[in-house]
This record gives sequence, C-alpha cells and structure tokens, in this order.
Amino acid sequence: MTAADPPRRRRRGAPAVPVRQADYRRLRNPFPVMSVFSEDEARSIHETALRTLEELGLRVLLPAARDLYREGGARVDGDMVFLGREIVEAALAAAPKSIHCHAGAPGRDLVLELGALAFQPGAGAPHATDLRRGRRPGSGRDYLEYTRLTHHYDVLHMMSPSVEPQDEPTATRHLFTTATQLAHTDKLPFLFARGTPQTEDNFEMLRLARGLSEDAFRADVHSYTVINTNSPRTLDIPMAQGLIDFARAGQLSIVTPFTLMGAMAPITVAGAITLSHAECLAAIALTQLARPGAPVCYGTFTSNVDMKSGAPAFGTPAHFQASLAAGQMARMIGLPWRSAAGSASNLNDVQAANENQLGLWGCLLAGATVVIHAAGWLEGGLSVSYEKIVTDVEILNMVAELCAGAKAGVAEIGFAEALMQVAPQGHFFDTPQTMARYSTEFYTPIVHDYANFGTWTERGARDASTRATRVWEAVLDAPPTPVLAPDRLEAVRAFAARRAAEGGAAPES
Amino acid sequence: MTAADPPRRRRRGAPAVPVRQADYRRLRNPFPVMSVFSEDEARSIHETALRTLEELGLRVLLPAARDLYREGGARVDGDMVFLGREIVEAALAAAPKSIHCHAGAPGRDLVLELGALAFQPGAGAPHATDLRRGRRPGSGRDYLEYTRLTHHYDVLHMMSPSVEPQDEPTATRHLFTTATQLAHTDKLPFLFARGTPQTEDNFEMLRLARGLSEDAFRADVHSYTVINTNSPRTLDIPMAQGLIDFARAGQLSIVTPFTLMGAMAPITVAGAITLSHAECLAAIALTQLARPGAPVCYGTFTSNVDMKSGAPAFGTPAHFQASLAAGQMARMIGLPWRSAAGSASNLNDVQAANENQLGLWGCLLAGATVVIHAAGWLEGGLSVSYEKIVTDVEILNMVAELCAGAKAGVAEIGFAEALMQVAPQGHFFDTPQTMARYSTEFYTPIVHDYANFGTWTERGARDASTRATRVWEAVLDAPPTPVLAPDRLEAVRAFAARRAAEGGAAPES
Repeated sequence: MTAADPPRRRRRGAPAVPVRQADYRRLRNPFPVMSVFSEDEARSIHETALRTLEELGLRVLLPAARDLYREGGARVDGDMVFLGREIVEAALAAAPKSIHCHAGAPGRDLVLELGALAFQPGAGAPHATDLRRGRRPGSGRDYLEYTRLTHHYDVLHMMSPSVEPQDEPTATRHLFTTATQLAHTDKLPFLFARGTPQTEDNFEMLRLARGLSEDAFRADVHSYTVINTNSPRTLDIPMAQGLIDFARAGQLSIVTPFTLMGAMAPITVAGAITLSHAECLAAIALTQLARPGAPVCYGTFTSNVDMKSGAPAFGTPAHFQASLAAGQMARMIGLPWRSAAGSASNLNDVQAANENQLGLWGCLLAGATVVIHAAGWLEGGLSVSYEKIVTDVEILNMVAELCAGAKAGVAEIGFAEALMQVAPQGHFFDTPQTMARYSTEFYTPIVHDYANFGTWTERGARDASTRATRVWEAVLDAPPTPVLAPDRLEAVRAFAARRAAEGGAAPES
Repeated sequence: MTAADPPRRRRRGAPAVPVRQADYRRLRNPFPVMSVFSEDEARSIHETALRTLEELGLRVLLPAARDLYREGGARVDGDMVFLGREIVEAALAAAPKSIHCHAGAPGRDLVLELGALAFQPGAGAPHATDLRRGRRPGSGRDYLEYTRLTHHYDVLHMMSPSVEPQDEPTATRHLFTTATQLAHTDKLPFLFARGTPQTEDNFEMLRLARGLSEDAFRADVHSYTVINTNSPRTLDIPMAQGLIDFARAGQLSIVTPFTLMGAMAPITVAGAITLSHAECLAAIALTQLARPGAPVCYGTFTSNVDMKSGAPAFGTPAHFQASLAAGQMARMIGLPWRSAAGSASNLNDVQAANENQLGLWGCLLAGATVVIHAAGWLEGGLSVSYEKIVTDVEILNMVAELCAGAKAGVAEIGFAEALMQVAPQGHFFDTPQTMARYSTEFYTPIVHDYANFGTWTERGARDASTRATRVWEAVLDAPPTPVLAPDRLEAVRAFAARRAAEGGAAPES
C-alpha cells in the first residue's frame, strides 16, 4: 500500500474514531445475484452445450491435446474431437471450486471462488494512449509503466496481460514481461502461454523470485494465464499447449472464449453463451485430463457486434445479459469465473465511462469472481488509456467501499449524538457524531472534483480525464517501492539475461 | 413516439422477424433488490424516526397545517408539532400503495407502485448549459427546449421541475411553465407548489387541457408536485400548503427531504435516513389528514458532503447506500418511492457520467419507483446540460432494454439454426438465425459510436459529449408534434393570458 492510498491515510489521521471498514485487497461481492434466464432455460443451454461437444465436436490443432482427449475417452476423427458428457462431468467433479493464489506477499494472496471479487485492468492491447504522449504502439516502457500503475491501486488485485511491448523481440518478450512484473509488483503475475519453451522460462523466473523448488512451486498456484479458445469450436496449438503446461505445473488457467454475438458466435445471448459454455467445458476437460484437480477458472467474454458495421461493441445491453447468463452457467458448475467490462470508445470520454461502468455492473450482478478490463480498456481492446485507468479505478474504489457495507447501530443512528443535538433548520457540522467521524466517514476521491463552478473555473476548468493525467504522473513520478529482495531480483535478471543471450524462445503459433 | 425513436423504427424495418420486447414507456424493475442494513437495523431506524417525531417534533410554519396536525391528535406547542406514532400509522394505512397517474394520452399513463420504474430528467436547476451556447441562467427558451427534449425520449416518463425560466416574472412563471408543458408534451406534468393561488391556476389550466370538470379532475391523478422538507425537521409555508392543496385536489405529492449527510443531516447513512424518514412520515401524515387516501409518494434524496469543503457530492458510495437504505424503509411502509441519481461535476465529462450511473445503479438496486435527475443534472443541480441529457438517456435506454429480459428457447439457443451451421473457425454472419434477427436483435445507440480508431479519426475525432450536441439539435430542429387539440390549447393559452393580464399570482415563501 502506498502513501497515496486513501483508507490507510485516513486511519493514520484519526486513530480514536470509528475506522472505515473498506479493505480494498480482499473483496466479497455484496451485490445480489441476477439471472437473465429461467432455471429451465439455463439447463437447456448446458444440455445443448454438451450436445454440441458430443455431436458437432471441437477442432483441436495440437496432437498432444487430441491424445489426451482420446485417452480420456473422446472420439477423435482427424483434428476433430467429440467429447462425451461423462468426460465433462468427470472434469467438473475434479476441478477445484476454491483456488488459493499465492502472490509475492501474503497480503496480496487471492482466494478465487464464487462470492469472491477481484479486478484486473484492461489487457491485451497493442496500443497505449495518454493525453501527454498520444496513442502509440505499446512499448517496453509502456509495459513497465502500466505494471507500476496496476501495482499502485489496491483495488486492482491481479496483474493482467496489459499492453503489448511491441519493441521487445518476440523471442525474448516473455523474459521482459515476466521479469518486469516480478521486479515491480507483488501481485499475482500474469504469464503468457505462447509455447512450452516460453512457459518454462516464465515458471523458472517465478521460482527464482519466490525462492521455490520445482515441487514446492507445483504444489500451489503462483501465477495464471488466460486461454482464449478460437471461436467457434477451435483450440489452437499454443492455447491447448498452455492449458496442458499450466495444468501440469499446478498453475491457473482462466479459460475465456471470446464470442462476439453475430460474428464468431450466434447472434442471440442464449446461442452465444451456449457456444462459449461448450468451448469452456472442453478446455476445462483438457486441464483435468492433463492433471486431475488442476486449478482452472471458467470464463466468458461475450458481447455483440454492431450489425451495421460489424464492429464490436461493449457495455451494451447484450453484453450485460451475456454476463448474467455466464454467471448462471458458472453457478451451475460451481467454478470461480471471469467476466469482463470494457468499452468500444476511441478515447476516455463519456461513452468510455458509461460503457465500462455498465459492463462492470453486468459483471457485479452476475456474481463474477474476476472482472478483467475493469479499468483502462478502450477501442474494444486495441488500446489502454492511462487516464482511463485512473477514472475507472475511482469507480472500482467506490465498489470496494460498497463491499464494506454500512451499519445502523445506536451510534450510527445517533439519536443522542446527532438528532437531539440540532434544532429545526440547524446543521450537523459540529455534532459529537460528526466530530468523531468527519475524517473517516466518506470515501475520498482520487480524481473526482466537488468544487463549485466558480472555483473549478478559476482552477482551470479541467475535465476529469485531463485531471487524471496528473494523477497517473504522480504515481509514476514517485520512487518505486522494492517488492523483491535484491538477491532474488538479481537471480531473475541474470536468468533472463542468459536466456536472452541464448536467443530466447520463439512463440508458438 | 418520434421517428428518431429506435425501437419503433426497427420494428417497421423488419416486420416478419422476432420483435424486440423493449417497451420504453412501461418499465418494471428487473433488478434484484439490495439491502444495506439488516431487518433489525431497518426496524431501529423506523422506530427512531417515530421517536424523533414524538419527542423532538417538527417545526411547521403554516398555521393551517398545525391545525390539521392538532385535529389529528398531535401535540402542538408554538410552531412545534409532536406526532404520536398512531397518527403516522393511520396515515400509512390510508395512503394508496398503487397510484394510477393519468397523462395526456393513455400510452403515457403511469402506475406508480413498488416494482414499477419511471425516470425523470434532471430538475430544479437555475442554469442551463450546452456546448453551443455555454452556461447561462435558465430562460423561458431553455424551459421550452428542455420540455421538448424530455418529451422526445420515451424512457423519460414524467416531466420534471426542469430548468428555472428566470426571465419569466415570478408572478406569471407558473402560467408559463404549466402552459408550456401542456402545449408540448402529453407526459405526466409537474406543477410547482408555490402557494394556493398559483396551484389553483395550474389545476385550472390542466382541467382545460384535459377537458375535465372539477369533480372529474379531483377523482384521478393528473399531475404531481415535489415537496422538499426543510431539513432538519422543518416544514415551511409553501411546502405545507402544497401538501394540503395537492391532497385535497387528489393530485400527487412526492415528498423528498433533501438531506446531505454531515450538513443538514447526520453524517452517517443510518442517521441521515432516520431524519429523512421522520420528515417524510410527517409530510405523508399531513396529506392523509388533509384528505384520507390522497396520493402520496415516499421519497429521499440523501448524499454526502465533501467534509473538506462542505460541497455536496453525488454518485458516491454513501449516496448509493442511502438509496438502498431508503428503499428498505419504503418497502417497510409499502409506498411507491422516489430516489435520485445526479452528479457534482461542472461539465458533461467522465466524472459526470460515472457519478450519474453509479447513483442510478443505487436507485435501481434499491427498487426505486421514480428516479429523478436520471439524465442531464450537473453541479449538484445548479445546471442541466443538454448534452448530458442525451448521453444519460443512452444509459437509460439500455436499462429499458434490460427490463425487457431475454429468452433462451429453442430458437434463441439455435442448435439447428446457428450452431450446426458453422464450421470451426467460421462465422455466424449469415446463419438463418442471424439473417432473421440482424436488424432487431441489438439496441441501436443514439450517441455511442462503434467506429474503429481510423474511421472515427477521419470523421473528426469527436467525443461523445460533442456528438451529443448534434443529437439534441436534431430533436429541437424537427417540427414539434402537436399533443393537444387546438381548441384546448387555445383555452389554456387564453386562461394564462387572462391571468397574466390580471397580474398573475406571487409565489408564497
């Protein structure tokens, strides 16, 4: 936690008064769960997904994955795999329902299970953008800065695939991204799964950072990756290999078909979720065939395309409903699951804010365990915005405050300490209740401004996105807090340097 | 409904395919209700509110109101009124739980009850602002334009107090605002309650517009007003008179204490809602003493102040929790109730969007019947923004879409019509399911833009708020649709002209 972090700072300033309950690092979802379909409809979707896997099958490009499916009892015909429901049911019985993820410090550990709530910033973007430097192809510098911004805010619980450092050679990019995370954050790292050689490098750096033997590493979850199936009904080589490698190493895969309604998926919410569910079940089955009990997270990212232009849209009613539907499927199978917010806007404007927040509420009411793209994601993922990280984190912080709830005991109602103290048309600025709580009762914003029009105009009439520039600049200007012992950091860097000198490892495709 | 209205237009274009379910005019809240306090805590708040009325009392400035309270059994001491709980309980038993509001056309009627959902635009603002003309004191022209914009969007269900036409003399302003509403919209009108003479003028214009006798008018709800108590614990002359006048005329009062935590109310959510609840119960009691069975709506508008500056804040965690708490109290007494979204931002920016939407979700999850300030409200109510009406209506439209739900029957899941039709890694652009639904399946935005970065840049790189200018301009540029028969419109205008010539009626204070 840094000095700029509101809850801790307020606690220091006011030790004797009621302490605010918000702990941004460990959230339980306080919002009621909402369903979009009836129980019977949800059951139909599950049954149709099983039928899809049995009758239509999945194209699996990696021979080793086909072998695992075959050995598990699936029918394999060329590169097509047909999974019986008994394989899926066995996998769902074997997959853990609660996953303890070990981060670089105990206070950063996460337990992923239904009811828990974790946020990730926007991820997988080829471009970065901010109001100082404009939009540019993602670079190593951007990756580092994005890592530091993600690390800074407690309400961002896990590292994300972030921005692509396109100036790093593809054969050594994994060395750079993993070493950068290990050096600059103690949050749960995201590791790319772009072929076994890269994955082995990533795991070795992580073992060096955590001081773990191979066996100790394998015994617990210390990292995760995201596996996108290639919808419809395809599992490509690096993705299948990633599922197998991470399962065998006891590391977490978050399986996320990316199913745009009307494009790579049926145009209806029900159809798109049926396809997504089928692909997810097949990928989950592969992890359990590779290693029974391997940690795996259910996931979906389903939104619609604009049918006029074919462009993807986010934060739409269909996106919201797809999150609700996926939540119903996740509860049916009992696994922790990942959903996504996001925006299609091209800059951090009103559309970007509204889409992201609407998408976020879809995830929250769907009971998502992990919400990716919860901050900073623009252009449907083609860029991440530094200012949008800040303005979205404001909302995530407020959600974290809501997670803490509120009390209505005698002291909070305050008949004696407040209501009795003030005459009609008086004010409550100096009641005993107010005096005891004024510095702790309310959330202090990081970028929202409550100044009146005159004061705000005198201060330069800057909108929230413009003000956000100074917020992220201040985070990056502050000296980084070391998160890793110097000897371990040195070991990670030496390994990365050696592997880079050896030529690294080309990504698989 | 106008030609620019998306659902109807789409229906015309695609008659033979599944019709979208969204009817923006009649919404039922589909979201699960959320509580912030336990049942016991909510009961304590109710009991403490009753105790507040019994022991601390309410200052009532209107003698006729004190007389009604006294005749109802309250103890009156000077201008202080002490209400026993039996008076409150009798009032709650007498107040109707479901209120049919007759608008200018049957399709605009509203039934206000728990479970229904109605939106109003931002209201009560002394200033108007837009990107063409800047921020200015509200004028008659602004009032007219705001009325037309409110009328245009089906998802805005009721007229609101809107923007104050400051260039209209105070003695004739009510004639102007009521005549303008009656001429330009058939939605449920809002009538100011600024003294009996003005109220009588307003009612007479409404009777002329609707062609109703005094008795027929009194038998049904044709209009509403908003009554803000003067927190803490004061009911001033025009507000008390308004409650009595509207109750006796069978017209609806929405009672809304405006209780800012830490200023006019206790600093805690629990304390502020206790005060608000007490004031609301006292006002409801007055309506039922004036006329048992009079239509009255419970209400709250509780947010926090920034304790550093004393400035009001909206769309905060405390605002959200206050809505949830008020919803619990409303469900306890069973009345329809009003809550509020809103923003403290000084322009239509990311802060404005995020605050408004966070406040909106608080209202939706609280089960609010009426959500005021749902679109267009800035500066904590000191201005309304034309662009913000447009960008907020986008979100309200999406909420209306979510009210329609979704289906997962055989046709929607589409095993035969979609899933079977597409090979692995193919696309769903031309499946039978997509072809049947492509023009109706998704919500079409009014201002959100899904163009990619290149196209968007070529088109001028305009943000959503800038694009919104053209949207409201197009609404105002279109010729107005007559909503009132010419003879009735003429009768309303003749009455207003005659009363203006007579000098109007000064507002009471």
